[in-house]
Amino acid sequence: MKVESLVTKEKREIEARSDSEKTIDPANLEMFEIARKAGVETAFDRVVKQEPKCPYCFSGLSCRNCAMGPCRITAKADRGVCGATGDVMVARGLLRNILGGAASHVDHARHVALTLLHAARGEAPYQIKDEAKLRNLGTMLGIPNAESMEVNKLAEQVAMRALEEIGATHANGGTWIKMHSTQERLETWSKLGVLPEGGMLPILEGMHRTSMGNDADPVNLILGCIKAGLADGFYGLHMSTDLQDVLFGTPKPKFSEAGMGVLEADYVNIACHGHVPILSEKIVEAAEALQEEAKKAGAKGINVVGICCTGNEILERQGIPQVGNELNSELVIATGALDAMVVDYQCIFPALVPAAQCFHTKIITTAPIVKIPGAEHIEFDEKRADEVAKEIVRRAIENYKQRDPSKVHIPKFKTELLAGFSVEALLEVLSKINSEDPLAPLVESIANGDIKGAVAIVGCNNPRVPHDLMHVELAKELVKRDILVLATGCAAHAHAKAGLMKPEGYKLAGERLQRVLKALGEAAGLEALPPVLHFGSCVDNSRINQLLKALAEKLGVAIKDLPVAASAPEYNTEKALSIGTWAVALGVTTHVNPLPRITGSEVVTNLLTKDAEQLIGAKFIHSPDPKESADMIEEVILEKRRKLGLPA
Amino acid sequence: MKVESLVTKEKREIEARSDSEKTIDPANLEMFEIARKAGVETAFDRVVKQEPKCPYCFSGLSCRNCAMGPCRITAKADRGVCGATGDVMVARGLLRNILGGAASHVDHARHVALTLLHAARGEAPYQIKDEAKLRNLGTMLGIPNAESMEVNKLAEQVAMRALEEIGATHANGGTWIKMHSTQERLETWSKLGVLPEGGMLPILEGMHRTSMGNDADPVNLILGCIKAGLADGFYGLHMSTDLQDVLFGTPKPKFSEAGMGVLEADYVNIACHGHVPILSEKIVEAAEALQEEAKKAGAKGINVVGICCTGNEILERQGIPQVGNELNSELVIATGALDAMVVDYQCIFPALVPAAQCFHTKIITTAPIVKIPGAEHIEFDEKRADEVAKEIVRRAIENYKQRDPSKVHIPKFKTELLAGFSVEALLEVLSKINSEDPLAPLVESIANGDIKGAVAIVGCNNPRVPHDLMHVELAKELVKRDILVLATGCAAHAHAKAGLMKPEGYKLAGERLQRVLKALGEAAGLEALPPVLHFGSCVDNSRINQLLKALAEKLGVAIKDLPVAASAPEYNTEKALSIGTWAVALGVTTHVNPLPRITGSEVVTNLLTKDAEQLIGAKFIHSPDPKESADMIEEVILEKRRKLGLPA
Repeated sequence: MKVESLVTKEKREIEARSDSEKTIDPANLEMFEIARKAGVETAFDRVVKQEPKCPYCFSGLSCRNCAMGPCRITAKADRGVCGATGDVMVARGLLRNILGGAASHVDHARHVALTLLHAARGEAPYQIKDEAKLRNLGTMLGIPNAESMEVNKLAEQVAMRALEEIGATHANGGTWIKMHSTQERLETWSKLGVLPEGGMLPILEGMHRTSMGNDADPVNLILGCIKAGLADGFYGLHMSTDLQDVLFGTPKPKFSEAGMGVLEADYVNIACHGHVPILSEKIVEAAEALQEEAKKAGAKGINVVGICCTGNEILERQGIPQVGNELNSELVIATGALDAMVVDYQCIFPALVPAAQCFHTKIITTAPIVKIPGAEHIEFDEKRADEVAKEIVRRAIENYKQRDPSKVHIPKFKTELLAGFSVEALLEVLSKINSEDPLAPLVESIANGDIKGAVAIVGCNNPRVPHDLMHVELAKELVKRDILVLATGCAAHAHAKAGLMKPEGYKLAGERLQRVLKALGEAAGLEALPPVLHFGSCVDNSRINQLLKALAEKLGVAIKDLPVAASAPEYNTEKALSIGTWAVALGVTTHVNPLPRITGSEVVTNLLTKDAEQLIGAKFIHSPDPKESADMIEEVILEKRRKLGLPA
Repeated sequence: MKVESLVTKEKREIEARSDSEKTIDPANLEMFEIARKAGVETAFDRVVKQEPKCPYCFSGLSCRNCAMGPCRITAKADRGVCGATGDVMVARGLLRNILGGAASHVDHARHVALTLLHAARGEAPYQIKDEAKLRNLGTMLGIPNAESMEVNKLAEQVAMRALEEIGATHANGGTWIKMHSTQERLETWSKLGVLPEGGMLPILEGMHRTSMGNDADPVNLILGCIKAGLADGFYGLHMSTDLQDVLFGTPKPKFSEAGMGVLEADYVNIACHGHVPILSEKIVEAAEALQEEAKKAGAKGINVVGICCTGNEILERQGIPQVGNELNSELVIATGALDAMVVDYQCIFPALVPAAQCFHTKIITTAPIVKIPGAEHIEFDEKRADEVAKEIVRRAIENYKQRDPSKVHIPKFKTELLAGFSVEALLEVLSKINSEDPLAPLVESIANGDIKGAVAIVGCNNPRVPHDLMHVELAKELVKRDILVLATGCAAHAHAKAGLMKPEGYKLAGERLQRVLKALGEAAGLEALPPVLHFGSCVDNSRINQLLKALAEKLGVAIKDLPVAASAPEYNTEKALSIGTWAVALGVTTHVNPLPRITGSEVVTNLLTKDAEQLIGAKFIHSPDPKESADMIEEVILEKRRKLGLPA
């Protein structure tokens, strides 16, 4: 479809949507009216005001990487002033977006590594919660005596190694990528010249090559995208998960609740929003410690709830209830019951502040690189973590007194959910069926087709797409077809709210998958496993690769040949693009929606949606419709099954 | 002025320009017609085709840092979908541009450091040419026994330190910034929280903070710009210059020529274009070695000429003539006399390839991150430098046979120039006047007003601005007012072509400055020093800071109080923005033209053009007119003189 008609179609669709078509979350729907009355503008409103979109930026056919422009490709101009073609503009625009995503995750990993370093040196109030994982990491990193070294000494060495690998300035054989990858992939990436040297260098190099007068070959630029995606996956996601598990414990299955109804009218409600558990774990601790102070302030206690990925982090480890995902973040303020929203970084809408100004809610920013005029900034410093966390919680308690009970409106919706599916936890469940060879039952179910395949549904919300609809309907379509779903990030919130993450949810699965879920559930002492497994936060997409690697090595096949796929059906962030690129680089065909800004280039579109398959064994696919998406994804899985000689 | 009227004004101006108003370089003017007949489209044509510019991208009021957009600020939308205001869009757009620039320079420095490392280890065919500078660097870096250590051992340690500081992942007290900065500046930067930890981290952090849902405070984002600018200045510019001087020698004054007339009809002509001398120095060597082969091919020999900054590098060290700057780069191909254009990275117009396809010229790309479809790619590897350089030169010799003599048209214009003004070389000249205290004569001239002040004119060409006009007219205006000009980059080419860099050029200076130039020139055995001193390539802007630091420390005042300023009056690249930001961070008020994409935000505009003065002691100024620019710059200088109690 031509760019102009895509833009027109989107305008028509977005402007035509009624409230009930904007979200499938009943709490959000209920809050729309209240928010409007209070004068809160939300992303659902702003997305309409952005119509019609600029067709040049929409399609990627514009560039402002130097001051000879801004340039765009038009009927009279087939090149920018420097001579960049539309293909180059699209490819370098995409690369810069992927760099933004990869940089975010690598910086997150860096932050965790630094915290581990300070903890190990006794300079920050954190402990090693999972010593076994630390020792295992140390061993994989080749640190001598990792099995027996004093735990903090080992933690210090692991943290230093992590930092060194993030900062590598030239090919030095980074271990993080090697220890989490199959040999087949490492060879493929080497051959393509996309093996990242470390965490930061691919970002530096990518910014360099996209600056004016550098890379003008769309294929070479797309290889840069893959390199940046790999940097994200291994020096961002994996490193973050590894070190967070060491510091805060490896998740185990636990029940909790999701939905706006987890707010408690008589409690001091604190929402943790953002991505990094370094802060949110301490907020949970401080809230526990200060319950009495809350009671003195007239509340029944303190209720910490989670939003977005830091929500997932404290859910999977502490069982903290989830008040919502990204597109709930503004509307939850309109409940009038939120005393503080504490944010670290990423996905923090600047619009939270004007929304909060319509109520008593305090938005508390904590990261030096995330400030919002009008928010209260209490700078977090992991060395003073307990002190700062208490200060924040006390600010919330104090603010509880400002709450106007007449403005409080908490929707009743909440749903039980089971979270905490690390690979380690999954293996523990599986070992109850086969203690000698825990993966065997899973492999057998995949082989015989009881589990036709597995799909990771991940990523954000995006108001260009009806809120949660794609996440939920796609998952329902897939599990019905006996395809197991693993979910992370805001997708996982959506599935949880829709009941796909509670044991009874297994009834939504196809008959054959139901049997597997019941058998596994029984082994775990439950009615059944849910058909959608909560695999954690966005950085925990690493856990999915960990599982894929284990399966591939167990089966003796490449990851690219496994009957699996991924989908980010409501993505919005640059991080989702870099994670998606990583997934494709792993050999996992990945569905995305909405359309990335590549429609202006046939070369780039073909590269990503066709030629990538030859290059790297996987590609991007796109559909805005859940049923069609499921069809496409199922076809990918069936094709892999055919090639492996497995029954359809 | 409103954005819409700025856009309209620019359209009118650009469309109305006749050929003779597009450039002041007579060679370019002569080539316009020939290029057109041959079907070569140049940046001068393409800039017209880009009119009218998009007012949103022009003003910075658009954003595509996530997939909820693209967004723009319009009458109905005062925020993007995430809630980002126009101020935030402008500030983060600017920061991303500065990151592109800083990344380019840090990656350049990294490349040089790696080459030094390989050379020191005997793995690459480069030698330490300036051992004294190496030992001095080692001492400043605090390396024990730097004075006496075996030279290659020391080089290895210096290279490793450079790489470590580039890759620093947290505050570790990087030395490169400390050794090149005054105490006053280090304290100012510390207080503002903008001291970079190293070379790559500010890029990583900047990409993170500009991704959706992070920094939404324009002031904080501008501080991020300053941090990135400092990373560029010290871990990009200074480090590149330091290590290039070690490897290739510190420049000394030498005569050469500039202008398209340096091409030789009967010679194999090879143009080196790009930025890094690692390749171009080897091309110069290989051309010398292969003269006989050229003669066998029917040529009189090989003539290596320079374009852009790698041109400046081989000019300042080897005296290689300069065929032109950025906006000559396409038109020089139309001479039909260029057998190969060898490019490394940065400022390489992708349009060179279609231009070369109209002639016999081979465009040879060499960097893994710079490929252009249709160009010949011969990958450079510093470990095989001699071999690759010879391969490239042989390709040019071979291609000489394809030259069509009927298509050869070389404009006659060329001008003598004096280049090679490192600080070390300047001090050597000065020491002939006062050997005890070489800076004394300079300081005295500044104090008594014979030198009213000094201005660095730097940066690119930009076809939105008449080619070379601002560089040359601004310089003429300034020297006439007894203000000494130092020039680098494409600005320096412009000055050279206009005769401002030859000794007779001193006559263009005001009377008092003339006296100084004659006195200094006589000390150096010349008629006079030119009124515009060639200080090298863009990375050699470091040399200007080196001089400022020496002057400030000599005078016991802060750099921000010196009667100096800077100007990038025809800038186009992101690098120019990051260098400009670094200059302002040093305390040097900096004139820029054309207008950066900040006009959409009063907050950002005020910050950069007003409040910065309070924050950091300098600010940005803008004017598109050379006379008005000179007035503004002179006023800055006079104000500094008044504050220092010096006579106007």
